[in-house]
This record gives sequence, C-alpha cells and structure tokens, in this order.
Amino acid sequence: MGSNDQKNRLQAVCVPPIISSLREKTNKQDMRKLIHSFKVGIALVLVSFLYLLDPLFSQVGENAMWAIMTVVVIFEFFAGATLSKGLNRGIGTILGGGLGCLAAALAQEVGGIGNAIVVGASVFIFAAVATYVRQVPNIKKRYDYGAMIFILTFNLVVVSGIRAEKVMRLARERLSTIGMGFVTCIFISLLVFPVWASDELHDSIASNFEHLAHSIEGCLEEYINATTFTNEKENQPRANFNRCKSILNSKSKDESLANFAKWEPWHGKFGLYYPWIKYLQIGEHLRELAATILSLKGCLQSQRQPPTAQRERIKEPCEAVGSILTWSLRELGESISKMRKCHAGTSIVPKLKSTRVEISSVSTNCKVDHQDIDHEYQDSGLAMAT
Amino acid sequence: MGSNDQKNRLQAVCVPPIISSLREKTNKQDMRKLIHSFKVGIALVLVSFLYLLDPLFSQVGENAMWAIMTVVVIFEFFAGATLSKGLNRGIGTILGGGLGCLAAALAQEVGGIGNAIVVGASVFIFAAVATYVRQVPNIKKRYDYGAMIFILTFNLVVVSGIRAEKVMRLARERLSTIGMGFVTCIFISLLVFPVWASDELHDSIASNFEHLAHSIEGCLEEYINATTFTNEKENQPRANFNRCKSILNSKSKDESLANFAKWEPWHGKFGLYYPWIKYLQIGEHLRELAATILSLKGCLQSQRQPPTAQRERIKEPCEAVGSILTWSLRELGESISKMRKCHAGTSIVPKLKSTRVEISSVSTNCKVDHQDIDHEYQDSGLAMAT
Repeated sequence: MGSNDQKNRLQAVCVPPIISSLREKTNKQDMRKLIHSFKVGIALVLVSFLYLLDPLFSQVGENAMWAIMTVVVIFEFFAGATLSKGLNRGIGTILGGGLGCLAAALAQEVGGIGNAIVVGASVFIFAAVATYVRQVPNIKKRYDYGAMIFILTFNLVVVSGIRAEKVMRLARERLSTIGMGFVTCIFISLLVFPVWASDELHDSIASNFEHLAHSIEGCLEEYINATTFTNEKENQPRANFNRCKSILNSKSKDESLANFAKWEPWHGKFGLYYPWIKYLQIGEHLRELAATILSLKGCLQSQRQPPTAQRERIKEPCEAVGSILTWSLRELGESISKMRKCHAGTSIVPKLKSTRVEISSVSTNCKVDHQDIDHEYQDSGLAMAT
Repeated sequence: MGSNDQKNRLQAVCVPPIISSLREKTNKQDMRKLIHSFKVGIALVLVSFLYLLDPLFSQVGENAMWAIMTVVVIFEFFAGATLSKGLNRGIGTILGGGLGCLAAALAQEVGGIGNAIVVGASVFIFAAVATYVRQVPNIKKRYDYGAMIFILTFNLVVVSGIRAEKVMRLARERLSTIGMGFVTCIFISLLVFPVWASDELHDSIASNFEHLAHSIEGCLEEYINATTFTNEKENQPRANFNRCKSILNSKSKDESLANFAKWEPWHGKFGLYYPWIKYLQIGEHLRELAATILSLKGCLQSQRQPPTAQRERIKEPCEAVGSILTWSLRELGESISKMRKCHAGTSIVPKLKSTRVEISSVSTNCKVDHQDIDHEYQDSGLAMAT
C-alpha cells in the first residue's frame, strides 16, 4: 500500500515536467508521436476493462486476451495503416477460421490416427501455399499481414479442433473479442487527433518541389560566387545535397504512405478520389530531378573550374534560367499544395520556352553550362508533364 | 472419410505437377521462395505436434498455442531476420513478463478497487512510454518488434494477475512454449537451406558495380552511335536506366539487409567480422554514381545533339575514358565479390590519373563531353575511396 502511494506521488511529481519539457523541446512531428503514444495507452486501458470489470469478464472470459493482442498489433501511427492492418486481420481471421473449421470437421470425420495425419497435412499445405503467396510482391505490399493472420488462425483452429469440442463457439468468441479490439482502435485512431497518411504524402510531395527549387538556387549561387569564397566551399553545399539525397531515397516511404492512404476514409478536399498513382508518378519525376541536381555536385566540387571571366560572362543568363526554373517548381508545388488547377500550358511552359530560346543564343559562347541547364530544363519539363 | 480420400488423391495428382511447373518457370530467386514456404510448413507441423501428440499436450496444455504463434510470427525469409525477431520476442517477453508480474503483485497488495486502478494506470503508463520509445528511429530499426511484444506481454500478464492466482506459473509456461517455437524456427531457418541476408547484401553490392559499368557502356554506345540509329532511340536506353533507378532506390533494402546481417552467426569468409557499415557506405557512393548516370538521360534524349563531325572527333577519347571507367568499376566489384584485396592505389588510380591528363588535352576542343566525363570520373573516384 505504502509503496503504491509513493509510486503515485512520484508519478504526480515526475510526469508533468517530463511532458512539458518534451513539449518545449519538440516540434510538431514529436508532438504527434507523443499524442500517438497516449492514444495507444488509452486504447489498451479500454480493452483491459474486459478483464478488469467483472460483468464484462463474465461475458468474454479468457478470450479478452485477443482484444488486447489486436490493439497492440494493429494500432499504427497513421490512421490508414491501422485500418489496413485491422481489415487484414479481420479478413485473415475469418478466412483462416472458416477453412480451419472445415479442415477440423474433415479430420474429425476421419477419426483415430488419421485425424492427426489430416490435421498435419492440412497445416503443412495451407501454411506453405499461403507463405508462397505472401511473397508475391503485389500481395506482400497490401495483404502481407492478412496472409500471416490467415496462417495463424487456420493453424490454431485446426489443431484446437482435435481438443475442443466446440470449435465453432471458440472461433465465434475469439472473433467477437478481436472485433472489440478493432473497433476500439479504429474509434481512437480515426476520431482522436487522427494522423492521415494521405495528408503526409500530399504535404511531402508538395514541399519537395520547394526543396528542389532551393537546392537549384544553392547550386547556382555556389557556382557563380565560387570565386569570392573558395575557402568555405567545403562547408557550404552539404545541406542542399542532403535534402536532394533524402528526396532520392523517398521511394519506399512514398509507396507505403500511398498504400495506407488508399485505406483511409473520406476526408480533405478530394474525399475518396485522391489520385495516389499520380502522386507516386510525380514523386518519381522529382527523384529524377533530384538525381540531376545531385550530379552537379561533381562539377561544383571539381578542382577544374572555368576562369572567372567566363563565369562572369554567363552569370546573367544562368541566373535568369535559374530563377525561371525555381519559379516554375514553386508554382507547381504551390498548386499541388493548395489543390488548385495549375495552368502550366499557358503560364509556365511559354516562359520556359522563351528562356530556352534565350539560352540557345548564349550557349554557342559557353557550352559548358548549357549542358547542365538543359538537363534541368528537361527534367522540370517532365515533372510538369505529370 | 470418402471426401478426405478424394482430397488426398487430388493432392497426390495436383501438387507435383504444380511444383515441377513452378520449378521449370522460375529462377533461383523463386526457388528460394518455394523452399522458404516448405520450411515454414515443416516448422508449423513440428510445433503442431504439441497439440497433436497426447504426451506432449499433457505437458504444455493450451499454452501450445504460443509456440504456434511464435513460429508464424517470427519465421522470416532471411535467417538473420528470423533470429532478430526471435531474440526481440524473447527479450520483449521476459522484460514485459517480469515487469508485469511486479505490477500485478503491487496491484494485489493494494487490493479492492485500488487493484483495478493500479492495473489500469500501469497499463497506460507502460504502453504510452514504450510506444513513444518505439518511434525513436534507431530503436525502431532494430527493436521495434521487441517493444511491441513488451507492451503485449506486460499488458496480458498484469491484467491476468487479477484473475489468475499463479501469474508466475502462467508466465513460465508461456515462456517455455515460446522458447519451443523459437528453437524450432531457428533450427529450421539456420540449418535447412539457410538464406543469409549477409550473402544477399554482399552479392547485391558487388553486382551493382557491374550493373553501373554496363549502364555507362550503354550510355556511351548510344551517344556515339546515335547518328546511325536515331529512329530506334526511344526503344534502346530504357533498360539501362531502369537498372540505375533500381540501384538508386536500394537504400532501404540495403539497410534492412545490413540490419539482419548483423544478427547472423559465423559464416562465410569474414565470419562475424563483415564490415557492414562499409558496405552501406559503398552502397551510398554507388547510388551517387547511379544518379550521375541517370542525369545523362536528359542529354541523350535531348533533341539538341552536337553535329556528327564533332561527335566523331571525340569518339576515341570518349571510348578510352569509358573503357577505363568500366574496367575500374568491374575490378572493384570483382574484388568485393571475391573478397580479395584490391590494390586500387597501385593498379586503378594511376590509370585513371593518366586518362584524366589525356582528356584534359582533348577537352579544350570539345568541352561539352568533358563535363559529363568529369562527373563520372569523380564519382568513380569517390566509390574507390571507400
């Protein structure tokens, strides 16, 4: 009793300062992580009531365990991920349970030693086939967890069939407690400070335009001003290229976000009709542009640089091209971010075209730079074409 | 009985043709997937014996369920992944179970309604803290699964404490069946046709050198021969760049392989002392080189190409540089693949340097190409520096 009081007092003293210091230090992302942690805690306390409250426990009994397991396993950071895992778990459980019951009934009809043989054979066949199917890339992407639960449920039901008389009742009871866990998760995940994967993907794609524009500016600035601060060169460019690199490595993150986003219910301006495939295509083009910008690193860090006079001569057209490119990227990023139609055909493309003509006239004098600019021009054209 | 016989006969007729046709169609990778599926099936049948055989069932009882669950959940494609998940599960279970017992004992001392309050509070606090810790990137990478199992076990033990008198016995029994599942998995995963993540990473890094060399050759060939088959241009280059793109997107795959590889026991030439961090660094440089090669796509597909005469003039030095670059890459890849010391300082670097001098003399005449070549040169130098 005493030690418990002490513990409670300790919590009352320690926890609020920890939370407040965390809140001070952390940015929005950390705040979201903190909220997610609280949400998981609350969901677990709610399903624990199935054990803690006598009237509830008398209804569900030891099967309450499955509700707790469901919450721990399916509660993910993004609402879409929770939904995806929950539905996968539900479908896997129902399919596995159903087929398990059939196999168990079949085994019981055989009886005797044949019973165990049928059970063993069905366990092997279903597990091997489901494991093989699980490894097919498209199924792995969306239904991996469901296939795992299918194997688990099938196996548990079919082997329990040997021991428990009432497989069906057992299956129904477990399913209902899993349902309780699922509902608790969905309720808390979707209604209490929900974190949407769709918003995350939308914002990340839109802000990548800005990051790339910023990187291009950085490269140009460094190239043009290289003469004035050659000594600091090593310290300067890193940050820009790091951003490019993180965009380059964004493919798997984008794909999993799009995968979760597909499961998310109606919200935001587009409701259920977000063009997730287009988002992924735009991401692909942005990665190509990031690769091009990253390849300029070699030029900028090379010891062989054109003489200052030549650099001065091409400074103006370079800056003009740079500003039109970054303007185009920002325009595109903003139109995605604010979900408004971007009249690229009438506003951006003519400007890019006229700039192209301008460079062509300069390029005969200074071919070195033109090549690079042509790259960027092409790539931003590609990004725009989406 | 009859339907079962029929089913067995059906299996005897159908399964071998399926397997043999699969074997014909599929390459080595698919064969490995098939073997993995069989291994999972066998492991599950083995743990199912805990249910199926009376002497075993009388020992473990319903807790046999936990052995099945363990096998389904931790058996992964790579041996290292299975080990990592298994050890995570073990540590999570022990920690969660231990702390859960303590909390349950504390709650029982309080008694009455306070009991439920202490249980609820401890569930909330431990779940929230563990969920927050789980989201720290470094912990997420290696111990995410362990943290989840910790939350699950803690919660189950602490709420069961209210109902079951013998929490300790329950915990011990479950732990022992989880141990049986773990041993079964490890035995089959490590001893029956093991698939090592370390070999996979080693081979993939080594072969990426060859892929990049091949891509460079493709680019050069297309650039030099562009005049002879301009019409087929659209069909030609795709394949090369696709390989580059897959290298560009390899970061997350490489990292997870390295993560699994760290758990794998002694094997191969380096035993336990594979320098995984260096593998990841080399992968990083290869991705940079892939980005540079990918950026040439813009040049090759651009409508503005230098006149044929100019192209003819630079053909020879271009080919010379190309061949020294691809030779260097292949040399490096082979030395990694065969784990033999590569004397880059005495064999590769002097050749690259002398080529550099050669290009310098040509470059004043044809600046356009020099810029590109300089990139590649620099990047391959970087890759070599590792």
